[in-house]
Amino acid sequence: MDVGELGEFGLIDLVTQRFSSASHVVVGPGDDAAVVQAPDGHVVISTDMLIEGRHFRRDWSSAHDVGRKAAAQNLADIAAMGAVPTALVVGLGVPATLDAAWVAELSEGLATECELVGARIVGGDVVRSEAITISVTVLGDLQGRAAVTRTGAAPGDVVAVAGRLGWAAAGLAILGRGFRSPRVLVDAHRVPEPPYAAGIAAALHGATSMIDISDGLVSDVRHIAIASGCALHIQSNLLVVDAPLADAAAAFNADPLTWVLTGGDDHALVATFPAKRGLPEGFVMIGDVREGDPGIVVDGQAVDSLGGWDHFRS
Amino acid sequence: MDVGELGEFGLIDLVTQRFSSASHVVVGPGDDAAVVQAPDGHVVISTDMLIEGRHFRRDWSSAHDVGRKAAAQNLADIAAMGAVPTALVVGLGVPATLDAAWVAELSEGLATECELVGARIVGGDVVRSEAITISVTVLGDLQGRAAVTRTGAAPGDVVAVAGRLGWAAAGLAILGRGFRSPRVLVDAHRVPEPPYAAGIAAALHGATSMIDISDGLVSDVRHIAIASGCALHIQSNLLVVDAPLADAAAAFNADPLTWVLTGGDDHALVATFPAKRGLPEGFVMIGDVREGDPGIVVDGQAVDSLGGWDHFRS
Repeated sequence: MDVGELGEFGLIDLVTQRFSSASHVVVGPGDDAAVVQAPDGHVVISTDMLIEGRHFRRDWSSAHDVGRKAAAQNLADIAAMGAVPTALVVGLGVPATLDAAWVAELSEGLATECELVGARIVGGDVVRSEAITISVTVLGDLQGRAAVTRTGAAPGDVVAVAGRLGWAAAGLAILGRGFRSPRVLVDAHRVPEPPYAAGIAAALHGATSMIDISDGLVSDVRHIAIASGCALHIQSNLLVVDAPLADAAAAFNADPLTWVLTGGDDHALVATFPAKRGLPEGFVMIGDVREGDPGIVVDGQAVDSLGGWDHFRS
Repeated sequence: MDVGELGEFGLIDLVTQRFSSASHVVVGPGDDAAVVQAPDGHVVISTDMLIEGRHFRRDWSSAHDVGRKAAAQNLADIAAMGAVPTALVVGLGVPATLDAAWVAELSEGLATECELVGARIVGGDVVRSEAITISVTVLGDLQGRAAVTRTGAAPGDVVAVAGRLGWAAAGLAILGRGFRSPRVLVDAHRVPEPPYAAGIAAALHGATSMIDISDGLVSDVRHIAIASGCALHIQSNLLVVDAPLADAAAAFNADPLTWVLTGGDDHALVATFPAKRGLPEGFVMIGDVREGDPGIVVDGQAVDSLGGWDHFRS
């Protein structure tokens, strides 16, 4: 059955089908709006949009993969504030000829990723569009803590990362050349694995700033440098080049560090911590914060903003 | 300058340019996520997506109109729960060739509509797409009240409406026939005027159920009937046919009641109230709730679901 036959309300049911009640959801899907508890008296909110052909390809990723990725990149933004994701709403634009099973699988993927962190899909809207368009907005709870923003890095702090860097970019390069393996890298492009728990661990450990790496390490860490008004120095010898990355780079005659420094879509978390506090579990030191022109310095060399991607200019 | 030259971050700045700080916004645009106060310990959330060609036409509506409409239809969902809108995030898909001025005007329209209710644009995402796609998610605060859902209508209640019915549909019909006047109806299509304050008034007055009329009176009120398990009787002689509607219908040799009963996009609010309480300001009685098969009865005649539109089937 295609989505045209199913109709708007049937589709919304599909998107929210996996909804299960939770104590923090007061009013779930099916009303004008949902009502979610915000026990902390604040709510964290972030939104991201994915479009077929630009952010995913149906011949490269299953609907389930796309759903997981759409949820993951939003959930990671909440984690990057040191908050716990609670609820998610989905706006979906689909062609009338799309198989309704694709939408059902997408929703399954969204719900599966949400379950990893205890969040629920509480609402949605479905409209007809030419290209499949997925707009996800996610809410989070700070559990009484202050949000960890991009503004608090200070000279002397340690810069540390939790999660993978460069894997999704390598996977995309592999698919772009017509290959389907190594599977572990291709899968990293299809479904990122943000280190959700590390975000809360960082907040509890007194992180002075934090960001989700969606566009690339250099590009995103620059936001911390600018917002905090200091120079973030990264030592490339501290960046872990995982074995699958090294192997793929060798096969492609490429430098794996380029993927690590500029590759997006892995949704690692980078945070700064006061040096004397050490690092929370899951974080690895990659550099330090110094006085100087706000920007990124890799191995003593200032790097410009071309180290990451800009969706409109690239 | 087109949006391709401006780049992703320049565009996000455009979307959030009109952001002004407010005591209830703890972290505004520019971080991984925004933080908004939820003093009530709950947050109300709703999302809607608009696509060019389907929900608006650039030759019929200005960018400012589209922005106001995109905000209004979301803000109305929050009002329909008896809540006060607090914050809004915007996902925007635009072609690289679009004039950046169009995006600036759209944002201006979004901000203008938000200002009517004290809400702020706290975040956004911008991606490249073929058709202009606007995904708005809005948050609201219940101020300590219970949400007014669709489930509480009971036999004996009065059915009442606040706001216009049929105006936007008449305006669309006028534009569709190549006319641009009567201006008041065309403007009603371009920018709805939801009765935001009536939503809170209804909640304070003890409304037993409430819904925002986005698809059409019969179609949307049916949701209350089904959710509450009773029959909602509407008396057509209680439905106000405003003078511009009557005039336009006469000119088109049409029945203005069709617009009133089935026209969408005005975002009036329909609520049910215990009969003995009377009605809050702004509401007019249009019928009553009775025991019977869940559904809508107009002038004693049960009407089927074709009384409103379904975006996929129509």
